[in-house]
Amino acid sequence: MCGITAYAGKESALPFLLQGLEKLEYRGYDSAGVTLVSNHHLETYKAKGRLTNLKELLNEKEHPEHTGIGHTRWATHGVPSNMNSHPHTNESETISIVHNGIIENYASIKECLLEQGYTFQSQTDSEVIVHMLDYYYQGDMMYALKKCVKYLQGSFALCVVCTDYPDCVFVAKKESPMILGKTDTSAFCASDIPAVLDYTKDICALEDGQMAVLRPGSIVVYDFFGDPVSTTWMHISYDACAAQKGGYDTFMQKEMHEQPYVIKETLRAHIENNLAMPELSGLDVSKINQIYYVACGTAYHASLYAQYLLRTWIDLPIYCISASEFRYGNYRIDENTLCIFVSQSGETADTLAALKLSKENKAQTLSVTNVLGSSLARLSDYVLYTCAGPEIAVASTKAYTTQLVLLACLCLKLASLFNKGVVCKNHMINQLKQMPDAVEQMLAQEEKMAEFAKLLTNQKDAYFIGRQLDYLSVLEGALKLKEVSYVHADAYMAGELKHGPIALIEKDTVVIALATQPSVAQKTISNILETAARGAKVILIASQSQNTEGFEYVIRIPDVDPLLSCIPATVLLQELAYYVAKEKGCDVDKPRNLAKSVTVE
Amino acid sequence: MCGITAYAGKESALPFLLQGLEKLEYRGYDSAGVTLVSNHHLETYKAKGRLTNLKELLNEKEHPEHTGIGHTRWATHGVPSNMNSHPHTNESETISIVHNGIIENYASIKECLLEQGYTFQSQTDSEVIVHMLDYYYQGDMMYALKKCVKYLQGSFALCVVCTDYPDCVFVAKKESPMILGKTDTSAFCASDIPAVLDYTKDICALEDGQMAVLRPGSIVVYDFFGDPVSTTWMHISYDACAAQKGGYDTFMQKEMHEQPYVIKETLRAHIENNLAMPELSGLDVSKINQIYYVACGTAYHASLYAQYLLRTWIDLPIYCISASEFRYGNYRIDENTLCIFVSQSGETADTLAALKLSKENKAQTLSVTNVLGSSLARLSDYVLYTCAGPEIAVASTKAYTTQLVLLACLCLKLASLFNKGVVCKNHMINQLKQMPDAVEQMLAQEEKMAEFAKLLTNQKDAYFIGRQLDYLSVLEGALKLKEVSYVHADAYMAGELKHGPIALIEKDTVVIALATQPSVAQKTISNILETAARGAKVILIASQSQNTEGFEYVIRIPDVDPLLSCIPATVLLQELAYYVAKEKGCDVDKPRNLAKSVTVE
Repeated sequence: MCGITAYAGKESALPFLLQGLEKLEYRGYDSAGVTLVSNHHLETYKAKGRLTNLKELLNEKEHPEHTGIGHTRWATHGVPSNMNSHPHTNESETISIVHNGIIENYASIKECLLEQGYTFQSQTDSEVIVHMLDYYYQGDMMYALKKCVKYLQGSFALCVVCTDYPDCVFVAKKESPMILGKTDTSAFCASDIPAVLDYTKDICALEDGQMAVLRPGSIVVYDFFGDPVSTTWMHISYDACAAQKGGYDTFMQKEMHEQPYVIKETLRAHIENNLAMPELSGLDVSKINQIYYVACGTAYHASLYAQYLLRTWIDLPIYCISASEFRYGNYRIDENTLCIFVSQSGETADTLAALKLSKENKAQTLSVTNVLGSSLARLSDYVLYTCAGPEIAVASTKAYTTQLVLLACLCLKLASLFNKGVVCKNHMINQLKQMPDAVEQMLAQEEKMAEFAKLLTNQKDAYFIGRQLDYLSVLEGALKLKEVSYVHADAYMAGELKHGPIALIEKDTVVIALATQPSVAQKTISNILETAARGAKVILIASQSQNTEGFEYVIRIPDVDPLLSCIPATVLLQELAYYVAKEKGCDVDKPRNLAKSVTVE
Repeated sequence: MCGITAYAGKESALPFLLQGLEKLEYRGYDSAGVTLVSNHHLETYKAKGRLTNLKELLNEKEHPEHTGIGHTRWATHGVPSNMNSHPHTNESETISIVHNGIIENYASIKECLLEQGYTFQSQTDSEVIVHMLDYYYQGDMMYALKKCVKYLQGSFALCVVCTDYPDCVFVAKKESPMILGKTDTSAFCASDIPAVLDYTKDICALEDGQMAVLRPGSIVVYDFFGDPVSTTWMHISYDACAAQKGGYDTFMQKEMHEQPYVIKETLRAHIENNLAMPELSGLDVSKINQIYYVACGTAYHASLYAQYLLRTWIDLPIYCISASEFRYGNYRIDENTLCIFVSQSGETADTLAALKLSKENKAQTLSVTNVLGSSLARLSDYVLYTCAGPEIAVASTKAYTTQLVLLACLCLKLASLFNKGVVCKNHMINQLKQMPDAVEQMLAQEEKMAEFAKLLTNQKDAYFIGRQLDYLSVLEGALKLKEVSYVHADAYMAGELKHGPIALIEKDTVVIALATQPSVAQKTISNILETAARGAKVILIASQSQNTEGFEYVIRIPDVDPLLSCIPATVLLQELAYYVAKEKGCDVDKPRNLAKSVTVE
């Protein structure tokens, strides 16, 4: 969950390293650091906190060096501090490394190295790597790196520089993302594509179990035995400018406002050809007798929605399980199983591990992701892409709503594959076509939600309640609020309130309730009245026809099929979270402790 | 969720009414009231808050009246106030009623009555009943009551007194509990058995769709058409003294300490005969192709445990669904379905409704309850009883752990029915036998947990984390803490922390982590370290063999099979919740807003 950059070329290394770290800052920002390879010595700079601290430090002198590595950190082992920041250097300061991932056996390696007389500066798992390299290094860095990667358990994306190789960066990858880029005179490496796009469009994704040596204008890729392997280079056409705020205060706000457009884009191809979904051709449903949706965080909420829809339409066991539970759970996975993975980045570590597990057990695998060529996309049997474009804000908005509409399409398609036809298909397609407009109407209500948000500015807690599909929406609404505003938000099934949680309701506690599902809305209203009877202030999101007499803070979603009402409702909940965070002065795009793409467990 | 008492007899009514309300106070205590039938007029007394307020009011004079009704209220419609308290009286003060339940169509009835010129004193749904009775009453109360119950939608347990019938109480029941009791000279009615046990052991449970007329020494039961029906009277032998604190500060503490004994009692019969479970004879598993566990609150957590166990042992779709979601969800329920319901009281409204729905759809039904002759027990095809004894504290402790062990036995039994034998059966039975002792060891650690509890005394929030079975334990731990101490506690799958909730972790935030499952404990430790890196204080509950180096607040559970470690672990979490509440001076046995038996939706 850290970000890495590296450069070997004919230009000055630092500008690339820093702009790359800036683009990767969404991956973590507890601390940052760089090592530059000067004439036979290494210069390492580190600073706690945001990247600007590091920049200030570097501004003190010129940095003409042509080789270097950089890192932005999200703390896994050890508190955020200078000491624990990357790069880590050996005692003689001849080797320096940056690492992304978790070394699971670091304790035992550390013990061995301590016996060998090595001393440690930090509490991090990463530092063992540089000392192990030092231990094995006898003039041949490839040899040392090969030895090293064989001992490391866990995940790593690793960049190494060494005074004996002033023009080279050595890299190695296992279960943490790393991409390579090159021009005629330079070689680049980074954790994600946007970090290099200003410099090159020629990109290659390093695979698990591969190492590479970067030199000015050349990159050679090897396997962990040191044998050269061939690689596939792609030319990326999308524009790095997309990753700008375009007039909005924050990326989150910009991305919320892109939703009508990206939902339309995501739907376009599928609706035009009446859900033909050629991406799924080859999928044999005849022997499938169970379906798992597997995902984490926001994507897990999208998957719960897909589970609900599909259960409405087909009679098969359909499960939705958090990836971190799935991979260690006692679930039956076999050749009669279809596993569907959902991840914006396509790099979520637990989801990726769950995919590998499913493949080992011969399940058919299908991924829904937003990133072309991501690990999830490369490894799945079938892939569907959301067209949300790059999402920069850590709290997911447009990626989530595009997942919802794409999963609705997928469920309709699966229903017709399993059932040879769904009664409601045309109705649902027509309703899906209304979604961009429905979301647009919700965005027009931004000011009203900003007003409601004031109720929460001085609150430490918030309770979200709903039933059926409304419960799934409030799960996401509560997650959004806690992510960006640090309000301790909780979501409850409205019917469970009385079985305990209602003890927390006091005078002026804010309850956010959804009543968009006609079959249960009146029951939810009864539950809301019980909280109101205890002094709660209620923000009510309701359908057009719902009687909301007696409620002060009411907002209505457009008249859409109840199976889709979560889409406009979610946009309102995003706005609520956003404005609470703004009102409280939080850093909306980069909430504390969080990183965009969770590439460790 | 209110409590009702009524008396018609030769003695003074008030002592019975008040002692009964006291025994029922666990069902709600927002307000209380009584109506006594004097010589041709009604005397009604109401007081907001606890029952003692009402008693003070009544102490002002003598009350020799022989007929009366009483009520203790848990607010559903309208804030707790004198105005909204029961009994409700008609304008001429000739009819008075108490009601438990929810009248769903009260708004439309109210509208009609307003048109007829009736005026309303309260915001409650219940008040419509007394005015409707007044409207239909023309000298024959049975006629008026028959008319009334036909119009009422929702649930009700209803008692009526009227100046024209100074010796009578009229009662009616639909989907809210009501029991009758009698002696040669008196007739009693109440919401639950303990309320009458000091006066009589001869009890009869009124069924849905029945009315009754209570007179001194006689009770006649009718259906809603007014035709007499026969009833079954039971002689109850258990001693009302059981409902005393027996030397402990609170019922909750007493009930926690009863756990070794009641777990042993619950296991005894089943283990003695090697899980023969004659209660299930007749259960035909040959055509069952799916199993639902359905429950609310704490019992829902017990059901999640049973789902996990059964999934480990048999290959069938096994679902666990909150009753309030199940009854309105789009679940397939048919003759190939086994539905298992769990409820301490056997009267939980949503669970009962889910049972009725399952029966309508021809599912086989099995209930796990603590109360002999409860509605759930009467209506299910098969019943298993926990032997927890009466649980008085609102927060469930011994009922939960007895549910866990009984469900473990049930899962083993089902596994052998489905699979013709489970490899681990004898091992599991041996391990189950260790549970009373394991729980005893945890109770001996009470002081240590009391010490740890001090970390939480000044905290508004707490986060519980765990993976796999540990996640299910922390769900219950968090519920317990919020119920009794009002600390806003949340439970997360440890692997989901990084996908949002970790944003809430600050310096000194308290995280309670469970690491009792060897296959995932190390992963949980990694997640805990991430919270510690952000300044969290961690209370760690771990297995004997777990490395817990570096953690300050560690407590270990005995060496038991990981599938059962939730039982001792839960006891520690109960103690934690208890001591936080004690330290904060909360009313442990009667938390605010909560009621013991949730007999409304």
